[in-house]
Amino acid sequence: MSRYDIAIIGSGPAGLEAAITAKIRNKEIILFGSRDLSKKVSSAHEVQNYLGLPSISGKDMEEAFRRHIQEMGIEITEDKITAVYAYGDFFMLQRNNGEMVEATTVILATGVVAGKPYPGEETFLGRGVSYCATCDAPLYKGKTVAVIGGSAHEEAEADFLSEVCGKVYYFPLYKETPSFHGDVEVIYEKPVEILGTMKVSALKTDKGEYPVDCVFVLRDAQFPGQLVPGLETEGNAVKTDLQMKTNLPGLFVAGDIAGQPYQYIKSAGQGNVAALSAVNYLAQLKK
Amino acid sequence: MSRYDIAIIGSGPAGLEAAITAKIRNKEIILFGSRDLSKKVSSAHEVQNYLGLPSISGKDMEEAFRRHIQEMGIEITEDKITAVYAYGDFFMLQRNNGEMVEATTVILATGVVAGKPYPGEETFLGRGVSYCATCDAPLYKGKTVAVIGGSAHEEAEADFLSEVCGKVYYFPLYKETPSFHGDVEVIYEKPVEILGTMKVSALKTDKGEYPVDCVFVLRDAQFPGQLVPGLETEGNAVKTDLQMKTNLPGLFVAGDIAGQPYQYIKSAGQGNVAALSAVNYLAQLKK
Repeated sequence: MSRYDIAIIGSGPAGLEAAITAKIRNKEIILFGSRDLSKKVSSAHEVQNYLGLPSISGKDMEEAFRRHIQEMGIEITEDKITAVYAYGDFFMLQRNNGEMVEATTVILATGVVAGKPYPGEETFLGRGVSYCATCDAPLYKGKTVAVIGGSAHEEAEADFLSEVCGKVYYFPLYKETPSFHGDVEVIYEKPVEILGTMKVSALKTDKGEYPVDCVFVLRDAQFPGQLVPGLETEGNAVKTDLQMKTNLPGLFVAGDIAGQPYQYIKSAGQGNVAALSAVNYLAQLKK
Repeated sequence: MSRYDIAIIGSGPAGLEAAITAKIRNKEIILFGSRDLSKKVSSAHEVQNYLGLPSISGKDMEEAFRRHIQEMGIEITEDKITAVYAYGDFFMLQRNNGEMVEATTVILATGVVAGKPYPGEETFLGRGVSYCATCDAPLYKGKTVAVIGGSAHEEAEADFLSEVCGKVYYFPLYKETPSFHGDVEVIYEKPVEILGTMKVSALKTDKGEYPVDCVFVLRDAQFPGQLVPGLETEGNAVKTDLQMKTNLPGLFVAGDIAGQPYQYIKSAGQGNVAALSAVNYLAQLKK
């Protein structure tokens, strides 16, 4: 397995700018994100304050960003990272497809997650709470599991689980009606708590309780402290400084995940700083 | 005299983005800078990492920025600010033309000044060291003064001083040959120290000493601690946090003056954050 210099997670303005700056500095990078770049950008009606692109629609801004990374030969690896583990002088990133990726530095630019973890979610992480179906499905062969799906993307994960597990309940957090190939039971109730003693025993909703062995919580993005064990946070933001450093050496943040204000140009600026901080960190390591 | 909500000093990417964001938030702003925006931007050969403007020349980037502020009806007041005084809940800004301007908040985006103050410069500030010819000329009627000129712009200041003072020495820090209307003696020597006991007595150069009553130090930009008495600095940068606050409530910084890296998109991002911090500060004051 090759080790990248810089792994960048997120394809909004922060992640894209970080990739551009790192590429100019001749670093081996891998950029995880979506071919659609950022829903938040493309769905913006009009952006007035991105200096140099006056009164631009979200769609046109997305196009300008896409052209920029294409001109620089930057590719997006379409996958979700479900966990980042710090090993001192490098990081292991767990991909949603089950594979691991190694990188010397990491830039988190995943955006901000609204809300809070469910009561019990953090307590039972690794003991019946999982963020990765591919990774943990084998542990629940023949068992009963619940999937909390943040978007229609997660339906494929539930389908996969239905091939392995005995019973799959699916709780959509979105409005569209889910559709499945496999045997998945959709429950239109709001999850409120994950119950258990030593390990998970049930998912509680606003209307009842479902006895399960595991709850797969598949949000669009994860809370940063869950994504990276040991990462210091403050509310839903990661603690950082002007150089976009975190408490974990070699791990940097940029954009909404670094706190307010949530603005495109601020995110891009921080992506630039995070990339240069990663470049400096790599230079220090070589000394 | 009317009081502006936000006075922005500097017309590089940080100042322009701050102006755009403040204007969108319906604040009364005044933007001090140059009609040429920023020498650093316009003289850049090619900029590759300003997300959304791939492989752009400095000239084209300047044009994109100019178009943006013009579309938003933002005007640049062409004047230098020579001092900013904090009065608790507002600021007084001294213009180079001698006038004062009041503002509730200030955003410093003046760029970074290379080098260090001359030995004696800070000691004798206000006692024979001045940064504003228009303001302090009357104090040196008939006396002998030295002008250290950072650019050809300052020749007009020396001309003006020659109308008031008895004798004017001019020490250019640039290569072009200075030209004057008045009686100004150009000395091609390098200033090294400002001498005196209670007040300034002479300017020392690498080749000799010139007895003077005042030294006008007219750099392109001032060291931030000199521009704003009481402002906390760290080297040539102003101490700030992620929200671009300084130790002076209501005074914010953005861009190169806030420290490295010196990058256009980073400056623009910080200009956005500084403007929103000023907007929040103004909202707090009204409570």
